[in-house]
Amino acid sequence: MKRKTADYKQMGKQRSGIYLLVILVFGIASCVSTKPHSSGNLIIKQQGAFSAGGTVVKSEGEFDALKPWNVQQGGQTRHGDHADVFYQIPENAKRYSMVFLHGYGQSRRSWQTTADGREGFADIFLRKGYGVYLVDQPGRGDAGQTTKPGQITATPDDQTWFTQFRIGLYPSFNEGVQFPKDEKSLDQFYRMMTPNTGNVDESTIVNAMSAVFDRTGDGILFTHSAGGSPGWKTAIQNSRVKAIVAIEPGGFTFPEGEVPEGNRGGKGVPLNEFLKLTKIPIVIYYGDYIPKEETNAASLNFWRNVLATARQWAKVVNAHGGDATIVHLPEIGIRGNTHFIMSDLNNGQIADQLSKWLQQKGLDK
Amino acid sequence: MKRKTADYKQMGKQRSGIYLLVILVFGIASCVSTKPHSSGNLIIKQQGAFSAGGTVVKSEGEFDALKPWNVQQGGQTRHGDHADVFYQIPENAKRYSMVFLHGYGQSRRSWQTTADGREGFADIFLRKGYGVYLVDQPGRGDAGQTTKPGQITATPDDQTWFTQFRIGLYPSFNEGVQFPKDEKSLDQFYRMMTPNTGNVDESTIVNAMSAVFDRTGDGILFTHSAGGSPGWKTAIQNSRVKAIVAIEPGGFTFPEGEVPEGNRGGKGVPLNEFLKLTKIPIVIYYGDYIPKEETNAASLNFWRNVLATARQWAKVVNAHGGDATIVHLPEIGIRGNTHFIMSDLNNGQIADQLSKWLQQKGLDK
Repeated sequence: MKRKTADYKQMGKQRSGIYLLVILVFGIASCVSTKPHSSGNLIIKQQGAFSAGGTVVKSEGEFDALKPWNVQQGGQTRHGDHADVFYQIPENAKRYSMVFLHGYGQSRRSWQTTADGREGFADIFLRKGYGVYLVDQPGRGDAGQTTKPGQITATPDDQTWFTQFRIGLYPSFNEGVQFPKDEKSLDQFYRMMTPNTGNVDESTIVNAMSAVFDRTGDGILFTHSAGGSPGWKTAIQNSRVKAIVAIEPGGFTFPEGEVPEGNRGGKGVPLNEFLKLTKIPIVIYYGDYIPKEETNAASLNFWRNVLATARQWAKVVNAHGGDATIVHLPEIGIRGNTHFIMSDLNNGQIADQLSKWLQQKGLDK
Repeated sequence: MKRKTADYKQMGKQRSGIYLLVILVFGIASCVSTKPHSSGNLIIKQQGAFSAGGTVVKSEGEFDALKPWNVQQGGQTRHGDHADVFYQIPENAKRYSMVFLHGYGQSRRSWQTTADGREGFADIFLRKGYGVYLVDQPGRGDAGQTTKPGQITATPDDQTWFTQFRIGLYPSFNEGVQFPKDEKSLDQFYRMMTPNTGNVDESTIVNAMSAVFDRTGDGILFTHSAGGSPGWKTAIQNSRVKAIVAIEPGGFTFPEGEVPEGNRGGKGVPLNEFLKLTKIPIVIYYGDYIPKEETNAASLNFWRNVLATARQWAKVVNAHGGDATIVHLPEIGIRGNTHFIMSDLNNGQIADQLSKWLQQKGLDK
């Protein structure tokens, strides 16, 4: 691997006033080894891409087609705030498709591959016969066109995420962590991050996700992390969501009057809306390294709080007649998982565990 | 289709001072019909995603893993400026893979599908047996993580692109245009646009593209529009580029001392670098509606200028012993093509035409 210290550069105009050490690492990707993939060809009946949902804004004025670059003259539209979807349908697909929504700072790539280049959940379940729809949410990745302006600071924060995602307390890896420790994999992992391109609120994401389900038909919604919260609301909004698999959701939707104290419960919704979440099977996974007691590490306390809220939420769902299951992996003997359970080294084992749940709930027909 | 005028909103803080009419069009995607795809299953031996190339910046300071959210404390890296690549390798793949680089404001979706949901060039050539690598360039789409800040204004400019891309002089469609005229297709087309997420210069794109070829091995580089210019330089930088198919390139790389007057010739490069472009077969396609004489339409004059520069460039390449061919489609009787030749209604015909060239040059083994 070629690394070269190239330049000290003062980012003087940034508020932060930080100094940046620019390290050029061209060519890292060329060193990434091709890991063995699951054997056998993928048989794809149909694949493609589309946008779903979104808004249109129009500027006042009159567009002059003879001088098309005078955008300040107005009279133009901007289509934005949609979801961008890549889909693959296998031969003899199962009844329910799977729709995958990424978390904060991520794109559909969360589901497509892993830090060390193995198959992600999308390919694993495609091989099991499910149609897969991989979403970039409004204002993220290939769905970058938004109708509200955005500013991207480019502040270095890789170590924030290494730590927040429970790979370890940087620079230490958690003991027994199911994450590849080689530099190339970590480089690929950091490069999965991609910023928000504009201001997008939760209802914009929910509307776009609901439009995705209008297109896919009945399906199983997978959410990761920050995708959890708009995921619950998508299921409330669109009855085509027939089940939810939530990987480490960070937020929850309680009924009004039953929102627990603390900052992860969100804003309550009317009971009749909440009750829609009691009509579908829901499974929620959390990984390892979530402490039972308060610690001196802010990230671990964050996840301790989230898991407690998740347990409380499942209790409320089930008290209202629902079917929500929390799987805290260490409790069933599966250890070492980070926040990225679906791409950790043991993601095949996790997929098998999940497949049993899908079968129990009749979702694998 | 549900359209609702929801709000007038003053974008008072924007320099433009334009007023925006916000039109909500949730649910458009749900109306997009599923067009018939090419028949037969796709047999995929391997598919996945990876990042290639890029840089790393580091902030001064000391990272505290116990308080990971204090990013202003510094001591962190940011990995950015890489290309993001999705790839699919068919069974019994041909010797050369195809690497696809999009144009300005676009992502890999340019090659994946069409405005009306048919198969794009990627699927068409995948079916013909080529491995395909679909790139989001640094600062675009899923490769949104850059090391320099970015600002996105969200100024409405759909009609600028409709016109610049020679679909017509908005609101008129060009006569006989090979572009679907229904509202749903146009909605999908506008939503393919996605902005730059940070300041990325051409050399950053070239370095990332070269890293892509380090990973793919020998291959054929496809470029569209603004991808043309970094495309020539990628071939100069990396001898694994064995041929170039350029769809309506907007810029060219001449040898120093031979750069033509006008603004499309770019900056000259040393002759020994330029000569690398004479060692590989190159074909360049332009579509319809490019006038012979100066007109009162700025966009058409722009393309007239580009096509003239392209012809001059091919002449220089061939005078130095190269093999560059310009195919101006109307000259071979193929009419109605926009700037998006690879996704126009006749993209199957274009692919067949291109296949003959690939065969002539021995690139289809």
